[in-house]
Amino acid sequence: MAKSSPFGKHSARSRKPANSRPLGEFELIAQIRQLFAANSAEFVKVGIGDDAAVLSFGGKELVWTIDSSVENVHFRFEWLSDADIGWRSLHAAASDLAAMGAIPVGALSALELPRRFRESRLVKLLEGQRDAAHSLGCPIVGGNLTSAEVLAVTTTLIGHTKRAKLRSSARVGDELWLIGDAGLAAAGLGCLAGGSRGRRGSAVDRCVQAWRRPVALIKHGCALVGQARAVIDISDGLVGDAQHLAEASRVAIELDAEALEAVLADELREVADRLSRPALDLALYGGEDYALLATGSRLKRPAVARRIGQVVDGKGIWWATRGRRRRVPSRGFDHFET
Amino acid sequence: MAKSSPFGKHSARSRKPANSRPLGEFELIAQIRQLFAANSAEFVKVGIGDDAAVLSFGGKELVWTIDSSVENVHFRFEWLSDADIGWRSLHAAASDLAAMGAIPVGALSALELPRRFRESRLVKLLEGQRDAAHSLGCPIVGGNLTSAEVLAVTTTLIGHTKRAKLRSSARVGDELWLIGDAGLAAAGLGCLAGGSRGRRGSAVDRCVQAWRRPVALIKHGCALVGQARAVIDISDGLVGDAQHLAEASRVAIELDAEALEAVLADELREVADRLSRPALDLALYGGEDYALLATGSRLKRPAVARRIGQVVDGKGIWWATRGRRRRVPSRGFDHFET
Repeated sequence: MAKSSPFGKHSARSRKPANSRPLGEFELIAQIRQLFAANSAEFVKVGIGDDAAVLSFGGKELVWTIDSSVENVHFRFEWLSDADIGWRSLHAAASDLAAMGAIPVGALSALELPRRFRESRLVKLLEGQRDAAHSLGCPIVGGNLTSAEVLAVTTTLIGHTKRAKLRSSARVGDELWLIGDAGLAAAGLGCLAGGSRGRRGSAVDRCVQAWRRPVALIKHGCALVGQARAVIDISDGLVGDAQHLAEASRVAIELDAEALEAVLADELREVADRLSRPALDLALYGGEDYALLATGSRLKRPAVARRIGQVVDGKGIWWATRGRRRRVPSRGFDHFET
Repeated sequence: MAKSSPFGKHSARSRKPANSRPLGEFELIAQIRQLFAANSAEFVKVGIGDDAAVLSFGGKELVWTIDSSVENVHFRFEWLSDADIGWRSLHAAASDLAAMGAIPVGALSALELPRRFRESRLVKLLEGQRDAAHSLGCPIVGGNLTSAEVLAVTTTLIGHTKRAKLRSSARVGDELWLIGDAGLAAAGLGCLAGGSRGRRGSAVDRCVQAWRRPVALIKHGCALVGQARAVIDISDGLVGDAQHLAEASRVAIELDAEALEAVLADELREVADRLSRPALDLALYGGEDYALLATGSRLKRPAVARRIGQVVDGKGIWWATRGRRRRVPSRGFDHFET
């Protein structure tokens, strides 16, 4: 099964595997953009097509996003505590603000609650949201409750920034930067989905925690505002979101194999071994890390950013290793692999 | 089954009938308010507790709301076209802006899409949203797509106003005003839920249309800004929302039976007869009309507002007829009565 995809994203497999896809998602999102075209409306600076919408108010830019977390699509109850569900829903949504370089102002939370979800569990979920809200400095200022068949948490956030960072401003010659870790969350999910096999040790703990309790990189995103040219979060996986960035900027991206290998976390290597999967595969295609991918001039690279490639002329995502270059297949990101 | 309830609302039956309620909703929302207390945060002028949150930016107040519309909870596919579902979800959410006297700036739409919901149907739903967006002058500037078991549309809107109207500012001595019609939507739902019985004629058409294609009273809401003291929308039914207003303002409300009888729409009387239900019952307890209930000084009553009672000292909702007074039972609003 697949995770959610903001209107701005359109990886071919982001809703469901190709063999069961009733919707041509790429065409569909193009159609949505056309139907809802509104970039010229008053106050609207950026409409559909980026991590979040941007409104302009009193000299400030407001960055506004929405994200849903649905039982049996984004998580299973066996894999997350109720508090984790609350935490995760807020940080996943906040990651869009991080990508735009915005500081959270507030959140609204719409909860769809199944009848079997008793009050004591709901309180745990709300406590997870509250803790996430504290960690983000982002008060939850309202919401909505409704019954439903399965649990779903839809979160909308507003952030503010002087000037929102977009995914469409990469330039040929920019370096490609990774901020945060790639692949850990997918490795953690692999451990959880695989049952008890290989579920012990601090490396496993770190990976599982990366999936259960992601942290939106708000401070890093803000630090990129004066430094980076284009930014996107890699919730859809490094390759998938590099594609979104490349398409929006009308450039190609070359991943530097040695540079990327060098920044993989030791815990990722260890857990990938236990899962019998290449660590690089998890880093390239594993989603939900909520790390940031940015481009910018070498001279402006901040300390938190690690170079993993460069922006080049052309189309698509390329893999450069020992002087050779080949196209990276766009197989979408891993999620609920069972 | 019940409709959704914003965190600010807390009618005892707004989530589900009392006999199957695992959650003490009144206590729960009090708990949510306590957990999420954030009225003192930067930019946040009003947090949980009204139709919408209010943020303060550059001399403007931004009114921000979220609302969900879930298959088999808020609608059934037999009763609404896909375009109706799109239209209805946006206007229902926009009604919270109307109540606060705000002009829509933009909307985000999070769609949970079941696999059986094919692209052609989704496009109809999106067209319904687009038409609603045009009618409201409210561009849809982003959103999110995810798979799910059942269809759900969660909509967040931002509006702007000089000064948001709250539900907590009613004063003893104010008149109680109704803006728009009460009971039509519930009558229309009654026709739909009752199958083909009594489903013909222009009165039925008007009631069914009131349920299928509600219209948020944005202009009326804005017109109330300089005139009314407190405003709320009656999506939870006239009595239910009068209670919310009375509780928030720490006053009692006396409904004037003759005045209310006088403003009932002829179509409501006709359809109520066919449904063998008292028209007044539908007007008092029928939800989802998205009309507005306001209080204000007699001297400031605008032309669109019709007096149906007054604000008095005390607690609760009272029914005044021919000089006698009795308490109105708080049985919550009708929805999916089957």
